[in-house]
Amino acid sequence: MTPVSTNIFSEIPEQIPEELFECIFKKDNVVIERIVSNGHVTPAGQWYDQSSDEWVILLQGQATLFFEQDQQLVSLMPGDYLLIPAHTRHRVEWTRADFNTIWLAVHI
Amino acid sequence: MTPVSTNIFSEIPEQIPEELFECIFKKDNVVIERIVSNGHVTPAGQWYDQSSDEWVILLQGQATLFFEQDQQLVSLMPGDYLLIPAHTRHRVEWTRADFNTIWLAVHI
Repeated sequence: MTPVSTNIFSEIPEQIPEELFECIFKKDNVVIERIVSNGHVTPAGQWYDQSSDEWVILLQGQATLFFEQDQQLVSLMPGDYLLIPAHTRHRVEWTRADFNTIWLAVHI
Repeated sequence: MTPVSTNIFSEIPEQIPEELFECIFKKDNVVIERIVSNGHVTPAGQWYDQSSDEWVILLQGQATLFFEQDQQLVSLMPGDYLLIPAHTRHRVEWTRADFNTIWLAVHI
């Protein structure tokens, strides 16, 4: 059977009251996820502290992450990717409010 | 240590006589790869017949794949992704010759 393609920029609800996380592929312990943010940030005082590594690329929009250990901001533009090793505490500090920010994350 | 970001659209050689394959992340049996094509196609009579699944997204440019079993063409635009299961014989039938086509492949 011929594989069917899907577009990562399509089928985004008009309103996304909460950040949107969707698993678009899963095999064994690997999960590929689409994330859509629109002005969303990690709630104050909260951190992501993940049990697996996350390789993530920003595909559209703009965002800023904040890493606890070095108290460093990392700004991301389309095409920017980085590896967030497991248990690297970080927050989404800012995403554009006027435009969807679309991420592709590979949890490994 | 704060993760450092890299841009997937950067550091592309001006001339790419052959299709460019670069591993940008590897963990266990998972490989994330950037592929840059510029008019490159799979040589006549040759097929990709891979031992692992390949989840691939086209990030820039334009391409057409050809799948042997159903003799089907699949055209890809930016944002289009698909899963090519292991041993699904396929070819890159066409890529734009006037522009770099950039793919992100996750071999799982």
